[in-house]
Amino acid sequence: MRDTLVAAAFELFLERGYDRTTVDDIVALAGVGRRSFFRYFPSKEDVVFPDHERCLADMTDFLAVDAEAGDPVARVCDAARVVLRMYAENPTFSVQRYRLTKQVPGLRGYERTLAQYLRGRFAGRPDGTLRADVIAAAVVAAHNNALRSWLRSGGERDPYAEADHALRYVQESFGTAAPRGPETAEDVVVIVSRRGTPMWRVVQGIESALSDGRP
Amino acid sequence: MRDTLVAAAFELFLERGYDRTTVDDIVALAGVGRRSFFRYFPSKEDVVFPDHERCLADMTDFLAVDAEAGDPVARVCDAARVVLRMYAENPTFSVQRYRLTKQVPGLRGYERTLAQYLRGRFAGRPDGTLRADVIAAAVVAAHNNALRSWLRSGGERDPYAEADHALRYVQESFGTAAPRGPETAEDVVVIVSRRGTPMWRVVQGIESALSDGRP
Repeated sequence: MRDTLVAAAFELFLERGYDRTTVDDIVALAGVGRRSFFRYFPSKEDVVFPDHERCLADMTDFLAVDAEAGDPVARVCDAARVVLRMYAENPTFSVQRYRLTKQVPGLRGYERTLAQYLRGRFAGRPDGTLRADVIAAAVVAAHNNALRSWLRSGGERDPYAEADHALRYVQESFGTAAPRGPETAEDVVVIVSRRGTPMWRVVQGIESALSDGRP
Repeated sequence: MRDTLVAAAFELFLERGYDRTTVDDIVALAGVGRRSFFRYFPSKEDVVFPDHERCLADMTDFLAVDAEAGDPVARVCDAARVVLRMYAENPTFSVQRYRLTKQVPGLRGYERTLAQYLRGRFAGRPDGTLRADVIAAAVVAAHNNALRSWLRSGGERDPYAEADHALRYVQESFGTAAPRGPETAEDVVVIVSRRGTPMWRVVQGIESALSDGRP
């Protein structure tokens, strides 16, 4: 039943376009009632991404392993890569679907999963839920930006490199990116100091930062 | 017709709960067909937020005025406040609706509008669309976090203060927050310097930052 609905939907999307296909059309072709459709898929969008639930489960499992380990922002970036992998494993289908629908999946489910994880990690920290929600949204947006740019290239570019680049922007923005060798040409020291701080104190701060054991 | 559908929907939400009300139930009570419903509202969620479109238009207008002026991130934070105002103007209704549905509006439309604006502002900059998409998502997430916290307080807290706090986190994360007087106790100078930079160069940089005309 589920597969029949997916097949009918894609047949119609190809024939008349995604936007001009309604749920009514899909159920008519599949020979089932609307209620059956909605038992499997909350909306037309969901029939386009039948792997969505499995993928969400994979992401949840991924985060559950060593949940407290590692930098939380890096962990949710890695969790987003679980979703990317689902696309990258089947580039032809992914690219065709994107051409057909111009859509990437409504990632609200993923965003909620990532936010929940981060809320756990940030529990007790000031603004923990705020940080969690904002970072989860930023991760999903960066992931989707990378995914779209790969899909638009017709699957030509390297999806993982696109994702690394986009997710790195998120990690940098939320202050958790580690320098990553050759690609980070500039090994920098950031000194934050109150205006009016005596210069000797600033210099002391810089010196101690520079002598923290790194070259 | 539109108002009849909204009234029927809220009557049913109150009676049996939001989740257990279907579009079929709403159209049956309103005495119209499903097609009429979907002519006005893309989904059940939308009937809950009938002001959504007007508000989106207000936001778009707001961003169109002096589109190139001001810090882009600050502008989109202000645009998010346009949405907040819609809620804050009618606290009783907003709080009741939240109790009923536990939902805040699917803000994908808002997010797209903010991202489009930022893409324009960042045009030609490296990673312009990435930055635009990520910042728009972060703004919407922060706005929703503040909105929810206000709604959960039963409308008791100050919604604008909640939003200021949440949006400030976004501005800080994306490096565009200006000091804001009394609340920013620390007036800071940030110096970014390559490791290995001679100390006199660093000191020169700090001195020139400190003498930029500010006290």
